[in-house]
Amino acid sequence: MEAALSPDTAEKTRLFAALEALLGARFTRNAALREQHSHGVDGLPPKLPDAVVYAESTEEVARVLALCNEAGVPVVPFGAGTSLEGHVIPVRGGISLDLSRMKRILEVNEADLDCTVEAGVTRQELNAHLRDRGLFFPVDPGSECTIGGMCATRASGTNAVRYGTILENTLALTVVLADGRVVKARRRVRKSATGYDLTRLFIGSEGTLGVITEGTPRLHGIPEATAAAVSPFATLAGAVETVIATIQSGIPVARIELLDEVQMEAVIRYSRLEGFAPAPTLFLEFHGSEAGVREQAEAVEAIAAENGGLGFRWAVAAEERNRLWKARHDAAWAALALKPGYRPLTTDVIVPISKLTEAVLGAKQDIEESGFTAPIVGHVGDGNFHSVILVPPDDPEALERAWALDRKIVARALALGGSASGEHGVGLGKREFLLREHGAEALAVMRTLKEALDPRGILNPGKMLPD
Amino acid sequence: MEAALSPDTAEKTRLFAALEALLGARFTRNAALREQHSHGVDGLPPKLPDAVVYAESTEEVARVLALCNEAGVPVVPFGAGTSLEGHVIPVRGGISLDLSRMKRILEVNEADLDCTVEAGVTRQELNAHLRDRGLFFPVDPGSECTIGGMCATRASGTNAVRYGTILENTLALTVVLADGRVVKARRRVRKSATGYDLTRLFIGSEGTLGVITEGTPRLHGIPEATAAAVSPFATLAGAVETVIATIQSGIPVARIELLDEVQMEAVIRYSRLEGFAPAPTLFLEFHGSEAGVREQAEAVEAIAAENGGLGFRWAVAAEERNRLWKARHDAAWAALALKPGYRPLTTDVIVPISKLTEAVLGAKQDIEESGFTAPIVGHVGDGNFHSVILVPPDDPEALERAWALDRKIVARALALGGSASGEHGVGLGKREFLLREHGAEALAVMRTLKEALDPRGILNPGKMLPD
Repeated sequence: MEAALSPDTAEKTRLFAALEALLGARFTRNAALREQHSHGVDGLPPKLPDAVVYAESTEEVARVLALCNEAGVPVVPFGAGTSLEGHVIPVRGGISLDLSRMKRILEVNEADLDCTVEAGVTRQELNAHLRDRGLFFPVDPGSECTIGGMCATRASGTNAVRYGTILENTLALTVVLADGRVVKARRRVRKSATGYDLTRLFIGSEGTLGVITEGTPRLHGIPEATAAAVSPFATLAGAVETVIATIQSGIPVARIELLDEVQMEAVIRYSRLEGFAPAPTLFLEFHGSEAGVREQAEAVEAIAAENGGLGFRWAVAAEERNRLWKARHDAAWAALALKPGYRPLTTDVIVPISKLTEAVLGAKQDIEESGFTAPIVGHVGDGNFHSVILVPPDDPEALERAWALDRKIVARALALGGSASGEHGVGLGKREFLLREHGAEALAVMRTLKEALDPRGILNPGKMLPD
Repeated sequence: MEAALSPDTAEKTRLFAALEALLGARFTRNAALREQHSHGVDGLPPKLPDAVVYAESTEEVARVLALCNEAGVPVVPFGAGTSLEGHVIPVRGGISLDLSRMKRILEVNEADLDCTVEAGVTRQELNAHLRDRGLFFPVDPGSECTIGGMCATRASGTNAVRYGTILENTLALTVVLADGRVVKARRRVRKSATGYDLTRLFIGSEGTLGVITEGTPRLHGIPEATAAAVSPFATLAGAVETVIATIQSGIPVARIELLDEVQMEAVIRYSRLEGFAPAPTLFLEFHGSEAGVREQAEAVEAIAAENGGLGFRWAVAAEERNRLWKARHDAAWAALALKPGYRPLTTDVIVPISKLTEAVLGAKQDIEESGFTAPIVGHVGDGNFHSVILVPPDDPEALERAWALDRKIVARALALGGSASGEHGVGLGKREFLLREHGAEALAVMRTLKEALDPRGILNPGKMLPD
């Protein structure tokens, strides 16, 4: 892969010397570290950065960006490296800017239900820090990802149906612009009507408008009562219809996740779940007071029974619940374990809830016709679901067919008024759908914003916006 | 006021002829109509537009903007004219673009809990349309305002503590750019991780980045049970502490509004409420199941009792509740009625909830020291409250002292980490605080965005961003 490196220009050589002078050993061209920063977990073709830089403060990020901007060298922010869409791949070379050492929890305002953390803090680290205070941070993608990465990709997870995504759960950001200026985007108030909403502009901008170095997440009180339930169904349609009726009834479920029978089989095997069958299944969780949880659960159980539900299996003890949700969060690994050595191609479509049956059953039929193993799993309460298409290695023809399947599933979702990505982002993998989803005019506005804020185009070039 | 008009240049004369050719009688220079479009309800100095244009479709708005952009003539969007911060005042002349005739409800997707409406639909018209379907739109500023105006000013109201502001309750927008291009910002999905969040960029941009012609609000099911309560307190501090403890406990109150004894006296008199005393008072509302409402209400009642609450007075029947909330929504009119002929200067600060006691009691003391009558009322569950400073007419010295009081209240809120406006917006009235609140770097980014999207500066010039 060394051959793929862009050549060292005089400009780069001067930049590298300046970065080394600034950061010492935290500037590195070590081959193993560059390899580690050449890919996410998506299986897209990796590409080595010219160098890796480990920043430890906003000020350092500012100085790194100012130097790179002057040199016109690309900068690709890197957090936990758990991107599923190629966000962290330095497709045009340059610097991989690793923020994972920025791990300080700067303040926790228990009384205001918020906190401020550096970008490299992971959601698990934050929740471990909060637990004794009776608080939690609800946004929970499957992986151990950083707050910075979650903000950059507009992440969500299983709790979004009740608590919202990172967009609704971030009050303020600190962002470094391409030229090194540091912007504090908003204050930590619950709402504000002053000025353009820079926080939301940077959330989901995938490192292309600025580098997020600090975030101020909203926190929530750990609910008085929690109950989880697993509900298998006779048919996939019955499971989906249960979700739709639950959401339309306004029942405030905390989590409502669908696994089709293929994904369920994978999860049972991978996480050694006992007493479960490979049937279309909903994983549910209810938060509230004791009485509130009971009321919600009874309402959903009745809806499920009307739709071919085969009965709720309860998990009330914390240990059992954690085991179930660990299994759910490991669903992607479970899927991969179905075909060892295969690479995943993951769809992430979202549709209005009324179109969910058509979108899920259509995807299921596409998958069956394709011959691929591709479990379906998702945050169906939002209308969002994934299919993890398992592609044999070193088989370009199979890869081409897998992309064709991916495109078919996305095209249907877009035709139903949906979006190509509910939570993974665009990165490299979903760029081709952006025009169809947003239209030429919205795309032109996005390009205008990009050019205005990053005129030299150094910030994560080649991502999100199609060429 | 005619004298204040900017002169008709040749450019303007050509523009007016083109607009008249396009719109016929819906282009007008009628004096009464221009006067009507010279002000909001804020009492700031009015200014006549050169002409008023009534648009009836997005396409017409696009053609009007393209013509105005070519001529370099300012365009000020106008909805219901209920702005409290001078948003609709054409301070640099030009066209007042009236969208109030764009009243079509384009679709209601009951199954997805959303709808799409033209910008001129008011929140009351939308709710009247929805009532028979068991749905409601929760964002409720005090006035009869339009969806377009609410989006443009990032409005909220009494329900925001439970249901969020217009920001959280808008899925998608149609926006016309300065040059007439029409942008569809996002699709009507619950979340999406594709592309920059243009919807949130235009929400709160106060007509300075584009003209919003359609919006897609989120809807909510009318709750199974609703109960309202009025709770007087021995002290203002006790009322505020009750709010803080309620929010910190995570009790999902639907509304929790504070009126100080001055505002309470005004409301009792204006709305002829019987059996209420002029004491610091909370107006509360609880939504949920029968049991859930009871549970929430009992929890808050217990907190109030600990803080000098003098007992809940219940309003469960819809008629009685509506009467109470009508009285609350009329609080600004009630305040004005305390001093007939006086003009209001309204603060709209918001602070983190932990700072609410300091902010409210500090404002109260400032008001008492000033000698002005200035009732305090607000959406305290969010940390947001208003003081309506009543200023005698034709008394420049009093006006100067009123501004000094306003600045003192805002300065304290900013020092406490708050924002100068929770929901009214910046407009003309809050421009001077923008730099202190956001800092020079964030302000520079806002200017960059403005210049990128409106290079000729025709969109609502002189608003929001300080000169």
